This record gives sequence, C-alpha cells and structure tokens, in this order.
Amino acid sequence: MEDNRQQDTKTPKVHSWKEVHREKWLGLSQINWEDNKGRHRVWEAVTRTTKQTGVVDAVDIIAIVRKDGEEDRIVIISQFRPPTEKVCLEIPSGLVDAGETAEQAALRELKEETGYRGTVVGVSPDTCYEPGLTSATCAVVQVLIDGNLEENIHPVPEMEDGECIATRLVPLSQLLVTLNRLMREEGMTVDAKVWTLACGLNFAQSFPPRP
Amino acid sequence: MEDNRQQDTKTPKVHSWKEVHREKWLGLSQINWEDNKGRHRVWEAVTRTTKQTGVVDAVDIIAIVRKDGEEDRIVIISQFRPPTEKVCLEIPSGLVDAGETAEQAALRELKEETGYRGTVVGVSPDTCYEPGLTSATCAVVQVLIDGNLEENIHPVPEMEDGECIATRLVPLSQLLVTLNRLMREEGMTVDAKVWTLACGLNFAQSFPPRP
Repeated sequence: MEDNRQQDTKTPKVHSWKEVHREKWLGLSQINWEDNKGRHRVWEAVTRTTKQTGVVDAVDIIAIVRKDGEEDRIVIISQFRPPTEKVCLEIPSGLVDAGETAEQAALRELKEETGYRGTVVGVSPDTCYEPGLTSATCAVVQVLIDGNLEENIHPVPEMEDGECIATRLVPLSQLLVTLNRLMREEGMTVDAKVWTLACGLNFAQSFPPRP
Repeated sequence: MEDNRQQDTKTPKVHSWKEVHREKWLGLSQINWEDNKGRHRVWEAVTRTTKQTGVVDAVDIIAIVRKDGEEDRIVIISQFRPPTEKVCLEIPSGLVDAGETAEQAALRELKEETGYRGTVVGVSPDTCYEPGLTSATCAVVQVLIDGNLEENIHPVPEMEDGECIATRLVPLSQLLVTLNRLMREEGMTVDAKVWTLACGLNFAQSFPPRP
C-alpha cells in the first residue's frame, strides 16, 4: 500500500458544539474546531435529536436470501422518501432503539420492513455517512436468510403506520443492471450506498475490464 | 426477480417545503406531503444552501490506478471531519460548482484532493444519500488513472485552505481488510458507501461462502 500522508503539525480537534436550531427530529449545530495548523474554525452539521451515546444511530442491512439451487439474492426495498420526492431503492435500514444492539435492531427492522427472518453473519465497525454533513453513524449488518424455510417463502412485513415499503429479491450478479433498469423505466432513485455495493459486486474482477 | 410490491391506493407526493431555519451552508425544512393513503404528513429534512437545480449536488469518485504488472488499486482518502470528531476514510468527493457537469467536477476534485489526473469511464444516474434525512444528491463517477504516466507517479494535490487530505492506494482485493486494519489500529471511521463498496468487492463470489 502506498502512503502519501502529509505531515500535520497538529492533530485536529473539536472544542465545542452549539445547537443553533432544533425541530422534533433534526437539529442544526455549529461546531467549533481547530484544524491541523491550529486555526480555529466553524463547521455546520445536522444531528438527529434521537441520538444516543455509545451506540450507532442506525443500521443498514445487507440481507441475502439463500435457497437451494438458486443464486444468492439481495433484499432491496423501495419507498417514497419525501426529501427526495421520489421512490428510492435502498437496503433495509432503521434507527436503533434505546437498549438495542445493532444486531437486534437489524433483525427487528428486517422483519418489520420485509417480513424476513434471518441470522446475523457480520457487523461492520461503526461507519459514518456523509461525514461532512452529519454526525450520524450506522453499522452495516450482514444477514443471511434461509430461503428454504416456510416463514421466508411468504414473508409478512409488520410496517409501522405511514410506512409503505416494497421488497424485491435481486440476484447479486444482477444488482447493477436491475438498479439501472428501475431508475430508467420507473423513475426511481437509488441510495448511493446501494450503488457502490453494486459497483463492488460488478467490478470485483477488474475495473473496467482490462483489454 | 421476485416482486412483492404492495398495492398502493394513491401515489405519495410532496405538496410544499417550508424552510424553518437557515445557516450559511445548511438549512432545515418541514416538508408537507401526502402518503399512499392520502393522509397529510410532515417530514423534516436538511438541505444544502448551495443546492442548484438540474444537477447533482455532489460527486463521489471511484478512482482506480492501473499500472502495468500491478493489481488495480483504488484511491482512498482520509481527513478529519468535525461532525464525526474522527479521521474518516472516504473516496474522493466534492460539491459540483455552478456550470459544471458531474464529470468535470469529478476530475477537478480528484486533482485538487489527490493530485491524480484520470479519465471518466462511467457515471451513475443521480443517486441520493440518506434519503430519509436530506434532499442531497450525488453522482458516483468512475475514473481510470494511468499509473504509468509521470504525472500520476508523483501526484501533487492542490488543496483548498483548511483541507488536509491524505491519499492511499489500496489493491481492490485488499480494501475490506485494509479498512478494518485502519479503523482498529488508527481509530479512524469509514464512510458507509466505502464500506458497502468493499463488501461488494469481497462477496462478489458468494455471501458468505457456501459450505
């Protein structure tokens, strides 16, 4: 691995947060911080008012249905998202409730949103999303679903009031072409995390193919 | 592809946005929208004050250095992000300037942040990130960098005042283990998009390996 790190004179650090506005779910803050040259600066960020300390805010769930004789299929959901004014293609996700672990939240949200029951096979370290915009953190939880079980052949979602989520199973090798088709034909948009996942699946061999 | 979409009685739609607070870079809005049952609801969202119409807000850049006789390597950057209070592992990214295309913004940002000069080989449709939180959109731009060229052997970043970005080249097959090592040993965090990209690269064959 090549390493081209610059020499920093100081370690950047945050001195204080000041909330300048708060609504029910979201708040805006000004962060007073010190950069690598020791200069004091201000950064704006959005926070979730539901934020707890010590656990991630949310889980994102890479859930795979494995069934005898079939290719592994990933669970993709779509729902109308007011901030985008479009139906968005995403992986199942949700906020972690008080007292829950990331694993528990992932299995609960997967069941609620899609009806599937699975087993956690991997949990990422705490990741961030849009670290220039928000303090929000999430864990990416990998869940394996036994597609041979009756409960997973006809899964029954348990959506909350106001939720309207559609579920699709997409063979891993078809994820990128399927996302493209749905965006083109049905005017949907896609979460960037799902897009990069599809890119990874697609160019695991080489990017783009060597001539 | 299995399809388990529910029957909606109505198409959800947004009626109006009302900005309830604005700082220099970010604003908070209440969105009045109508769900699939025709009920009027309110959603909170954060917006960038720099948002333009008709183009994506930002670009995320999957940049690959290809050099004779070597495995393809992805450009990973790290920088201190005040909202997370940590050094974050990300792919190069940036806001699209007025009048720029996504391709132009990607090549400019890549040069500024890392010094590399590349060629665009793919652009995603408009994607969203955290569509429950923000209206922000981005294009994922794939860039190929000729690692045999002198200008890409000793690339010179052109960072803006206040930016302090370190660049690493990571073989595609080593991305997941490298992210894990940096988080464990150096206390860094990682952008969820980069994590899902690494997951895709890793389990392109099977997830997890079939017994």
